[in-house]
Amino acid sequence: MLDELRAALPAGAVLTDPDLMAGYRADEAKLAVSGAPLAVVTVGSTADVVSTLRWATAHRVPVVPRGAGTGVCGGAAAIDGGIVLSLAGMRRIREIAVADLTAVVEPGVINADLGRAVAGEGLFYPPDPSSFEISTLGGNVATNAGGLRCVKYGVTRDSVLGLEVVLADGRVIQTGGRTVKNVAGYDLTGLFVGSEGTLGVITAAILRLRPKPPTEPVTFVASFPKLPGAGAAVSAIIQAGLAPSLLELIDNASINFIEDYRRMDLDRNAAALLIGQSDSARAAEDVAAMARQCEAAGADLVVVASDATESEALLEARRLHHWAVTAAGDVLTDDVGVPRGRLAELLTGIERIGAEYGMPIATVGHAGDGNLHPTFVFPHGDEAARQTALTAAGDVCRLAVELGGTIAGEHGIGSMKREWLAEQFDADTYAAHRMVKQAFDPLGILNPGRGI
Amino acid sequence: MLDELRAALPAGAVLTDPDLMAGYRADEAKLAVSGAPLAVVTVGSTADVVSTLRWATAHRVPVVPRGAGTGVCGGAAAIDGGIVLSLAGMRRIREIAVADLTAVVEPGVINADLGRAVAGEGLFYPPDPSSFEISTLGGNVATNAGGLRCVKYGVTRDSVLGLEVVLADGRVIQTGGRTVKNVAGYDLTGLFVGSEGTLGVITAAILRLRPKPPTEPVTFVASFPKLPGAGAAVSAIIQAGLAPSLLELIDNASINFIEDYRRMDLDRNAAALLIGQSDSARAAEDVAAMARQCEAAGADLVVVASDATESEALLEARRLHHWAVTAAGDVLTDDVGVPRGRLAELLTGIERIGAEYGMPIATVGHAGDGNLHPTFVFPHGDEAARQTALTAAGDVCRLAVELGGTIAGEHGIGSMKREWLAEQFDADTYAAHRMVKQAFDPLGILNPGRGI
Repeated sequence: MLDELRAALPAGAVLTDPDLMAGYRADEAKLAVSGAPLAVVTVGSTADVVSTLRWATAHRVPVVPRGAGTGVCGGAAAIDGGIVLSLAGMRRIREIAVADLTAVVEPGVINADLGRAVAGEGLFYPPDPSSFEISTLGGNVATNAGGLRCVKYGVTRDSVLGLEVVLADGRVIQTGGRTVKNVAGYDLTGLFVGSEGTLGVITAAILRLRPKPPTEPVTFVASFPKLPGAGAAVSAIIQAGLAPSLLELIDNASINFIEDYRRMDLDRNAAALLIGQSDSARAAEDVAAMARQCEAAGADLVVVASDATESEALLEARRLHHWAVTAAGDVLTDDVGVPRGRLAELLTGIERIGAEYGMPIATVGHAGDGNLHPTFVFPHGDEAARQTALTAAGDVCRLAVELGGTIAGEHGIGSMKREWLAEQFDADTYAAHRMVKQAFDPLGILNPGRGI
Repeated sequence: MLDELRAALPAGAVLTDPDLMAGYRADEAKLAVSGAPLAVVTVGSTADVVSTLRWATAHRVPVVPRGAGTGVCGGAAAIDGGIVLSLAGMRRIREIAVADLTAVVEPGVINADLGRAVAGEGLFYPPDPSSFEISTLGGNVATNAGGLRCVKYGVTRDSVLGLEVVLADGRVIQTGGRTVKNVAGYDLTGLFVGSEGTLGVITAAILRLRPKPPTEPVTFVASFPKLPGAGAAVSAIIQAGLAPSLLELIDNASINFIEDYRRMDLDRNAAALLIGQSDSARAAEDVAAMARQCEAAGADLVVVASDATESEALLEARRLHHWAVTAAGDVLTDDVGVPRGRLAELLTGIERIGAEYGMPIATVGHAGDGNLHPTFVFPHGDEAARQTALTAAGDVCRLAVELGGTIAGEHGIGSMKREWLAEQFDADTYAAHRMVKQAFDPLGILNPGRGI
């Protein structure tokens, strides 16, 4: 069977050596189960993807599309007896059209490489998942990746104008186009963005670029003695139309993990820190206004950076969070969203759940979007604690839904969160999703058991 | 058969009187064919829609959902033997959540009524089709309506967070939600937005509101002796990151229709006028910068308004366009989009097509989005000229596609533009759209013959 696939692809495209395959079996979801693949297929062109999917359809072989493997929900973990389809080798920027503010990229292009390629034209590509230096644009599109700048510039879907997609049976379609407005046909572009490899394989994307902001961003940090104040400040800043280009929250547990890891002189008793930024033409005035909103909402300390170096320093605590919690133990990072007005309730509820299970939950996230990452920290290799973390994470997902929110803000469902989909979707809504899956993948070979 | 429907609905919901039905047969696409419906069903609740669709499924009766009937592509024209499902009576604003910047509305709510309802909270709903004082939000959502403010705030899809939809068989689903980020499941919300009543009937929408801009907008008008200059100015303004809140174009033919209609002292020899606006916190500076971009691109006259009254006066020519062309004859308004950098080529091509057919084409539109409305003007009641207009409109659609654009920017496909879909979609891409239609409407009862 694999000989047939080898014959259809360039030499060396099909890997079966267990040592070579090992690097393609898991993604960054360390708690996800990953199987033993039949083969890893490394493609270099749309034609290779077509050949691979025709073969997979003919032989009913599950296909796991994969970019850089930086996903955190098990969406790219290998499946027993399936193939891993690595698109990392399709790394050409096909076109940069400055007058149109668009770029056409292949799925293996690294997010930051596109940024560097267009910077000389005074442009940037807004979506900035934390992994942007190592993750691929194909993976970003397949998961509808978020990031810090989303609060101003939207998520990945808001920057995708069109796609080239290979369907399960090998047909190639072109969705959307190069225009910012387009009502011809259904929004198949939006449908494939975030579909986690379950509807087709993305082989090119027409992305929307933006002019670089006119000034260096200005940053502030505000410390809140109580959670409701931090929540109120977020709502007030957004309602005032101050358009922060970043608005992050660090909760009390996170503050303490960070201080344990490196002394930053953060207030270990603060309920939360808000870190905000403006990149507008009047960034200093806008940040001053945000600082006033924080004070009015009860912040007891607000620091505004006076230059770019200070701005970077204020962001340092947020950047250290990942290293601080992973130094403290094994972690499970959740990803829930609520309407912005319910942030404080979500944070209070997370604290309650942490207390119930006797497990620290260090929460950070994109407060301006109501999207938080409660991070469960437990002793290295403690299997019982790991199970407790998964149970507690389920409680957090249920809480988010009760507050009118979502079990997944920007990381996807992957294989890790499927059991909680029923919390969010009633039976008919879930069935409507499955109708789409059934239409595009009737044989169920595209990343089965992942996403919806 | 209708008795069964009457029994399932409140008294008076089913209209069969031909005089009463007459008002529901056509939309604003005067050249579209409209049929003789079996009945008009005026619903007041989601439950009524469920009853109606269950009945329609049982009896295989085509259903044409309808808001205010302001569509211009025949998407809401009645079908022989079908029913017209009027959602205009579902006009409740269910909720306005200021802290979340969301509103939940029923489909019959008039766009401008939502604007008025939230203005007191310092908020606004950005999408502003020209019909915003009379069109319904349900219709806006079903067509993914555009408008003047889209250039800054995006199209209707960008302001819809979630939907309540009744499927063809009467099942009710909830798509999306109340959060600005959400990756649980496929983007069914985006799929239903712009689906022109062909996949389900929208019975509620969770809409995204925005803080009102801090200042009165400032307006400029620039007059260009040559088309390429106007195109270059549009690209330069957008690339400079000046974020106009409106950037409209009026071509030479339109200038002359407007001057014929009312003396405005426009330059009858100008190739095009650009009208732009900023609503930013530094609107005056931003408009001054836009004016400089226009001069650098070859504008021979640029006027900047010094107050709100002057701003309004400068917009007057754009507003008069509709009245000027309809006073001159029958009109067919097209709606094409191109990548922004191809605007001048599109305009030049439209002039060429007008000359070929000996028919004036007065073009206006949303230049900042690359979305133009070539308007074919011909003698009242001249059937041959009407056929010529349709043929010429086909040529314009083909031209837009050749330039990397779309046959439909914001008005939809309706019944009028289906014949040109094949210009834009290859066979496999078209088939992918039909797979979605087939999944959601296997019996083909939802607005058959419209949209994709």
